[in-house]
Amino acid sequence: MNELSDKINSSTVPRREFLASVAATVGLASIPGLSNAKAFMPLTQSKLTVQQVIDIILKEIPGAPFPKTVDTLKSGNGQQVVTGIVTTMFATVEIIRRTASLGANFIIAHEPTFYNHLDETSWLESDPVFQFKNDLLKKNGIVVWRFHDYWHTHRPDGVLMGVLEKMGWKNFYNKDNPPMINHPGMTLEGIVAQAKKGLGIRQVRIIGDRKQVCKRIALIPGAAGGTAQIKLLQKEKPDVLIVGEVHEWETAEYVRDAQAMGTSMSLIVLGHAESEEPGMEWLVPWLQPKVGGIKVTHVASHNPFMEA
Amino acid sequence: MNELSDKINSSTVPRREFLASVAATVGLASIPGLSNAKAFMPLTQSKLTVQQVIDIILKEIPGAPFPKTVDTLKSGNGQQVVTGIVTTMFATVEIIRRTASLGANFIIAHEPTFYNHLDETSWLESDPVFQFKNDLLKKNGIVVWRFHDYWHTHRPDGVLMGVLEKMGWKNFYNKDNPPMINHPGMTLEGIVAQAKKGLGIRQVRIIGDRKQVCKRIALIPGAAGGTAQIKLLQKEKPDVLIVGEVHEWETAEYVRDAQAMGTSMSLIVLGHAESEEPGMEWLVPWLQPKVGGIKVTHVASHNPFMEA
Repeated sequence: MNELSDKINSSTVPRREFLASVAATVGLASIPGLSNAKAFMPLTQSKLTVQQVIDIILKEIPGAPFPKTVDTLKSGNGQQVVTGIVTTMFATVEIIRRTASLGANFIIAHEPTFYNHLDETSWLESDPVFQFKNDLLKKNGIVVWRFHDYWHTHRPDGVLMGVLEKMGWKNFYNKDNPPMINHPGMTLEGIVAQAKKGLGIRQVRIIGDRKQVCKRIALIPGAAGGTAQIKLLQKEKPDVLIVGEVHEWETAEYVRDAQAMGTSMSLIVLGHAESEEPGMEWLVPWLQPKVGGIKVTHVASHNPFMEA
Repeated sequence: MNELSDKINSSTVPRREFLASVAATVGLASIPGLSNAKAFMPLTQSKLTVQQVIDIILKEIPGAPFPKTVDTLKSGNGQQVVTGIVTTMFATVEIIRRTASLGANFIIAHEPTFYNHLDETSWLESDPVFQFKNDLLKKNGIVVWRFHDYWHTHRPDGVLMGVLEKMGWKNFYNKDNPPMINHPGMTLEGIVAQAKKGLGIRQVRIIGDRKQVCKRIALIPGAAGGTAQIKLLQKEKPDVLIVGEVHEWETAEYVRDAQAMGTSMSLIVLGHAESEEPGMEWLVPWLQPKVGGIKVTHVASHNPFMEA
């Protein structure tokens, strides 16, 4: 996706121009008493619809809108006026309840709502869990939009930057080759300790020697899939690959064999939710100034698992 | 796959008849000094080729051979005479070395050899890990055959039976609906303790209340995929589903939402390798009497991960 990075500037509309255009569209500029900018801005922006918020976001994404993407509305419609935005990894039942209690009605979630990548629901129509969740969304008038493909396409990748910031690795961002971070090197156990502390993870899974010094560090939060993960290993030969989730029969077995043949290639699996949640937190300061008076709140959906 | 179970008997060839047919095929019945059955059988069977062993196995599988299956040769050819058989979950570099050191040359593995479900290798041709493993197999003259679809189709499912036996749950096998085992019920933490002890697992991941009594217990070793796992949850509404591996955005999120809506549905994720390895161990007593003098040995490939 690096070839897209040079398009960023051309697709970015300066915020000031955009606000003027919103004001013109909703016809508020002529309302008496609104000539004062301080009073005007929150009122204008509190009238943004879901689709207008999405459009504000997409103006910052190179190549958007995409003809094919999983980043669609999963519930509700784009004409609804937004009362508040919650960003999270998964729009779980618990997150929907929290959103309603915050008086918000728009969830921007990184991952699927209905338990499959494409959020296909035909096979779930008579499913009680689907019905309960779908009813809860409708009852509370909450719209869910997935923000996955676009956020990863943003430069810098919003998820990656969120993780780097939480890890204290912001300055190691490598704009020419984002997955290979510009890290001076540390032991595998040092990286594990930093990831657990920075990302708030109780436990990770590793393949490799804890004492090994890792100089070439690759980082792909989430579950990019075995082919993408292994192709990165082929191309970059890192000392360690840090990911959110693997298929156990793909990347894990590749790294196990790479170790057995004598290389230093190792693997850290953080857990999917915790490996990308920082990206949805990083979205708040990015999005808040663009939507003025609409409150943007990050609510972590957290790792669903307990170790036992 | 239940609809296949009534075909078992029709496709089963009595062992005695089969041995006679092998002897006739390889023309050994007329060799002087072989009229003594004791001397004859090991000699005949030590001449079995890989394909002959596969054919012995397939005679026991309802509906075999399948027109489409991942159960193909991953290295070597079927004409090779077998010197010894190793059964395992993954034909890792380490397992290949162990096989060679045992003087065996045929690995029957449950899972892929080359890091993707279909064992496609075109994208790996210049990959050093693939090349090393492939060369190691060729240098040692070792054939690898995957035994996945067929073993799950056997009645009883060989993997499931291996797991039930290790768990001390053999008598709970439910031939009418294998995933819903006939268990009298126990707490979630009791099941976890039994699974860890029985299957030799250091740690599992759970979603649910450890103290909850689980009366309806569903067990699907391996990684059946979110759709299959969730469809079972829809249909059977078990108190607990025990699996090897999940996609974290599929089954885990479904169970998390089911809990949030107030149901008692819980999840235990054992780890893929450890959840099915018992099935490849159970293969030894099943296969050994069918191949006479050829030694069949189970070598566990184990969980590649360490917790950190």
